[in-house]
Amino acid sequence: MRVLISGGAGFVGSHLADRLLAQGCAVVAVDNLLTGRQANIRHNLSNPKFQFMEADVCVPLQVSGEVQAILHFASPASPIDYLKHPLETLHVGSLGTENLLRLARRKGARFLLASTSEVYGDPLEHPQPESYFGNVNPIGPRAVYDEAKRYAEAVTMAYYREFRVDTRIVRIFNTYGVRMRADDGRVVSNFIVQALKGESLTVYGEGGQTRSFCYVSDLVAGILRLLWLDGDDNDRHLPVNLGNPLEFTVKQLAERVVEMTGSRSQVVYLPLPEDDPKLRQPVIERARTLLDWQPVVTLEEGLRLTIAYFKNELEEESSYIVAFGESRESRESGECS
Amino acid sequence: MRVLISGGAGFVGSHLADRLLAQGCAVVAVDNLLTGRQANIRHNLSNPKFQFMEADVCVPLQVSGEVQAILHFASPASPIDYLKHPLETLHVGSLGTENLLRLARRKGARFLLASTSEVYGDPLEHPQPESYFGNVNPIGPRAVYDEAKRYAEAVTMAYYREFRVDTRIVRIFNTYGVRMRADDGRVVSNFIVQALKGESLTVYGEGGQTRSFCYVSDLVAGILRLLWLDGDDNDRHLPVNLGNPLEFTVKQLAERVVEMTGSRSQVVYLPLPEDDPKLRQPVIERARTLLDWQPVVTLEEGLRLTIAYFKNELEEESSYIVAFGESRESRESGECS
Repeated sequence: MRVLISGGAGFVGSHLADRLLAQGCAVVAVDNLLTGRQANIRHNLSNPKFQFMEADVCVPLQVSGEVQAILHFASPASPIDYLKHPLETLHVGSLGTENLLRLARRKGARFLLASTSEVYGDPLEHPQPESYFGNVNPIGPRAVYDEAKRYAEAVTMAYYREFRVDTRIVRIFNTYGVRMRADDGRVVSNFIVQALKGESLTVYGEGGQTRSFCYVSDLVAGILRLLWLDGDDNDRHLPVNLGNPLEFTVKQLAERVVEMTGSRSQVVYLPLPEDDPKLRQPVIERARTLLDWQPVVTLEEGLRLTIAYFKNELEEESSYIVAFGESRESRESGECS
Repeated sequence: MRVLISGGAGFVGSHLADRLLAQGCAVVAVDNLLTGRQANIRHNLSNPKFQFMEADVCVPLQVSGEVQAILHFASPASPIDYLKHPLETLHVGSLGTENLLRLARRKGARFLLASTSEVYGDPLEHPQPESYFGNVNPIGPRAVYDEAKRYAEAVTMAYYREFRVDTRIVRIFNTYGVRMRADDGRVVSNFIVQALKGESLTVYGEGGQTRSFCYVSDLVAGILRLLWLDGDDNDRHLPVNLGNPLEFTVKQLAERVVEMTGSRSQVVYLPLPEDDPKLRQPVIERARTLLDWQPVVTLEEGLRLTIAYFKNELEEESSYIVAFGESRESRESGECS
C-alpha cells in the first residue's frame, strides 16, 4: 500500500506518515515547507519506504508508480500562518485540492481531505454536528482559510458525485501535541513555551472561556480509520468531525501547564482581543458510530508529552545557538545569518 | 474608457455591454459561450467600440491595450446550468475570478465581482442584509455555485487587502428580463413560455410562497453606479445587495402572466419538489445610501418587456425551423443537425 500525504512535513501530516510507515505502508510525503518543517520528517529520511518530495501541490503533480490513497493535509492552518499567507492558503484549498483529486482519479486512489472546524465559523449552534451549515464571514480576513476549506469540501464532493472518486472528508477540531510549532500562536504551545522560558502566561479575558483540544495521536487514529473504511453505502463520503468534546477553561489550562512544567511563571490576564478564537466543540457521534472512534489520551498525558517535546526543542535550540551562533530554523531554511 | 466584461454574452453581461457602449465606453466582451449566447451580442458586432473574445477566463487571459475596468460576470447562474456544469462552475468562481483579478492588477483596472444572493444559502435571517453570514450547505449539490461564489468573494477581498486592487462586489438577487433563456428553469421564464405556448403554468406547492424579482435594467444601473463610485473610504469595497425587495406570490405571478399574455393556459398546482428555490429578499439600504439606487421598473412593465421578448423569440424560432428544419440555437452552436 502506497500513500501520498500532502503537507507531509507538517504537524498532523508527519504523524500520519509515522503511523502509516508503522502499519507497513510506503509513504510519499509532499510538502513545499511553507509552514511544514524538515525536522518533522528527518527521522524517516533513511527509511526506504519513505520518500520526500519538496513540491507545491498547487502545481500539477507527477508521481510515478502506484498510489492507493492520497491524504490532503497541505495548508497553513493556524491564524498566524494563514493571515501571513492569504493567497497561498486560498490556492492550496482550491487548486491544490483539485490537483490531488485529479491525481486520485488518475491513480484510482482514495482521497481524504483535511477539512476543519473553521467551516463552522463562529457557530450559532453549540456543540456542532456535521449537519450544521456554519456561520462564516466570506469577506473577513479569516475567509482565506475558512472559505478555501469550504470550497475544498465542495470540489471534493463534486469529484465524488461526477467521477466517483472514493473521497472522504474529516473536519478537524483543535489539536495539540508533539511537533506543534512554538510560534504558531495557539494557546497550548503559547502556554507551554512561556512556562518553560519562565515568562508570564498570557490569558486573554478572564480565562473562563472554554476550549476543547484533541491530542494528535487520537486524531491520527480517527483519520486512518476513516481512510480504510470500506462499505457500499455513501455515508463514508460525508464529512466526519474529529476532535475532543471535553472542555476545559483557559484558566484551568494555564494553571495545569504551570504545575506540570514546575515553572515559576505567573498567569497574567490581558484584555480580550477582537479576533478571539471562536468557541467550538465537536459532536462526535458520527465518528463513534461510523468508526468506533473516540479520543483516549487524557489532557494530563497529552500535556506531559507536549511539554517534554518543547523542553527538548528549546534545549536543542539553545545548544545550536551556542554552537553556531544562529538558530537551527534559520540554518535549515538556508537563510543567511 | 475601456471595460472588459467576462460573461459578456450572458443575460446580465450583455446588458452591461449595451449600457456601457451607450455611455461611450469601449467594451471587450469575453465569453466561452457555455451558457452565454451569440444572439445576445449580435447587434453589437458591427460596432467598432465592441470587441468579442470567445475565451474561457479559467485560462489566463491576454488582453492588449488599456483596460480601466473589469466586470466578472462569467458563470453558469441558474440551478439547471450549474448542476449540469459543476466543475466549470467551481473553476470560474475560483480560477476565473483570480485570473481576472490578476489582469486587473496588471492593468491597474477596477474589478467588480458578480456575486449572488446564493451566498446567503437558505437564510435563517429574513430579509438579508449584507452583514448576514448565510446558511449554505458546503457539501450539497448546489455548493458548486454557492461555495464558488463565496470563495470568489474571499479571493476578491484578498486582492483588495494584499495588493490594493480597487475591487467591488455586488450580491445579485433574482433578476428577470429580456435575454433570459427560455430553458433556464426560472419561474418567470417558465411561466411566460408556458403561457405563450398555451401550455399549463406549473406552480409547485400552493403558490403562496413569495418571490422578489428585479428587472435587469434596474440591476445594470446599480452595478454601474457601484463601478464608477469614487471615494477615499473603504466602504465601496464591501459587498452591496442589488435586488428588488418587493415581494409577490408565485400564484399572483402566474395569474398576471396569463392575463398579460392573453393566454388560455390553466394554472396547475404540483407537489413542492425537495430543492424548491430558497426564499430570499434583499435589504437594499446600503445600495440606497451608497449609490442612491433603488429599482424603478414595475413588475407590470418588466413583464410587458419580457413577454414581448419571448414572443419574438418563439416566433423567430418557429420561422427558423420552417426555413432550415433545425432550431436556431443548434445551427448557431455549430452542432450537426
